[in-house]
Amino acid sequence: MPPGLKPAGAFSAEERAAVYRAIHERRDVRGQFLPDPVEDAVLERILAAAHAAPSVGLSQPWKFIVIRAPEIRAEIRAAFERANDEARQMFEGERRALYSALKLQGISEAPLNICVTCTRGGGVVLGRTHDMDTDLYSAACAVQNLWLAARSEGIGVGWVSIFHQADLRRILRIPDHVVPVAYLCLGHVRELFDGPELEARGWGRRAPLTEMVFRDQWPPETDG
Amino acid sequence: MPPGLKPAGAFSAEERAAVYRAIHERRDVRGQFLPDPVEDAVLERILAAAHAAPSVGLSQPWKFIVIRAPEIRAEIRAAFERANDEARQMFEGERRALYSALKLQGISEAPLNICVTCTRGGGVVLGRTHDMDTDLYSAACAVQNLWLAARSEGIGVGWVSIFHQADLRRILRIPDHVVPVAYLCLGHVRELFDGPELEARGWGRRAPLTEMVFRDQWPPETDG
Repeated sequence: MPPGLKPAGAFSAEERAAVYRAIHERRDVRGQFLPDPVEDAVLERILAAAHAAPSVGLSQPWKFIVIRAPEIRAEIRAAFERANDEARQMFEGERRALYSALKLQGISEAPLNICVTCTRGGGVVLGRTHDMDTDLYSAACAVQNLWLAARSEGIGVGWVSIFHQADLRRILRIPDHVVPVAYLCLGHVRELFDGPELEARGWGRRAPLTEMVFRDQWPPETDG
Repeated sequence: MPPGLKPAGAFSAEERAAVYRAIHERRDVRGQFLPDPVEDAVLERILAAAHAAPSVGLSQPWKFIVIRAPEIRAEIRAAFERANDEARQMFEGERRALYSALKLQGISEAPLNICVTCTRGGGVVLGRTHDMDTDLYSAACAVQNLWLAARSEGIGVGWVSIFHQADLRRILRIPDHVVPVAYLCLGHVRELFDGPELEARGWGRRAPLTEMVFRDQWPPETDG
């Protein structure tokens, strides 16, 4: 066995079920945050999980800005409201009314916000030579690790994306070569939706898996 | 309790440990694939995990092209080799020698490949009004779900990104408005590296978590 390799070790049925439980019970939380603070040890485990994500060429392009200061979150909240007013106008008729009724963020109610960033540029990165977006994908994988770890800790996460990036950069002092990939709200939750909240509220519906899987090649005449 | 909400339900210490085990023992596999086929039921659970990822506005922009045909994988493999010859030239001196010695894919050895795509465009998507990359992030989250589910099933996953997108589109007949986000090799594994293979082989090293976490704002004079 070459150095560094070790037996993979099977997961027990219970361990496997726990992984699937986190995956299938993970929700995008907007309205269920409790005010209780997130314990430092829990936060550290969640951030360590994010930092254990795959990264192109082991570049680890992410940073995690942990935001607790109420005045900064108030600014972020105001930036969301401005962008959301614009977003609302992009929908018509009944969709606009439904959109307006949705709660899409918990920036101030959640005790903790985290902005996950991706540092771009720099030298040539192994694996990023032919697809320059792979560093952004690495950062998104870190978000998903964070989210699943949080679920297992009883912490809900909500991803808020309705911002002008310029506002996030200004408020959080993020340099120009760094992309804010995800703005997350975190807090303890006692209740979660049984399925996607947007489905429960009639905005959309989950597609069956069978519609998502193709065999060997993209099928002809399929728009997808 | 509003309709659709239910008690979140705490994870036991054992369940939480299983989630963290999957996150911390997940590896990018290139050389450890066994030839044994991946069972259909296992593949379906892994794909269902991917499909359970968060997606912006519940858009579910992903498709999963499951590739078993050896002749298609041979074409993909050839496309990798062409791109990898170019990639090698982008590194200098000792780095080039080390790069050349790395095994970066298991396209033909792994019994199964999956291309995860993201369908772009279409109508206005809730949450994508101000950041047009959020659909790509959704697809990357699906990849991470798939990867963790696979780890819990004893299946290794390797992400190959050294391709010209035009080659992937041509070989897999992917339409122009669809982005191939990830090309994955999957197969049973008996051994895994103890840490990132690129660290074991001296290409890079993991940064400590403390370097990755900022408080409230990006610190002044920090390049990141």
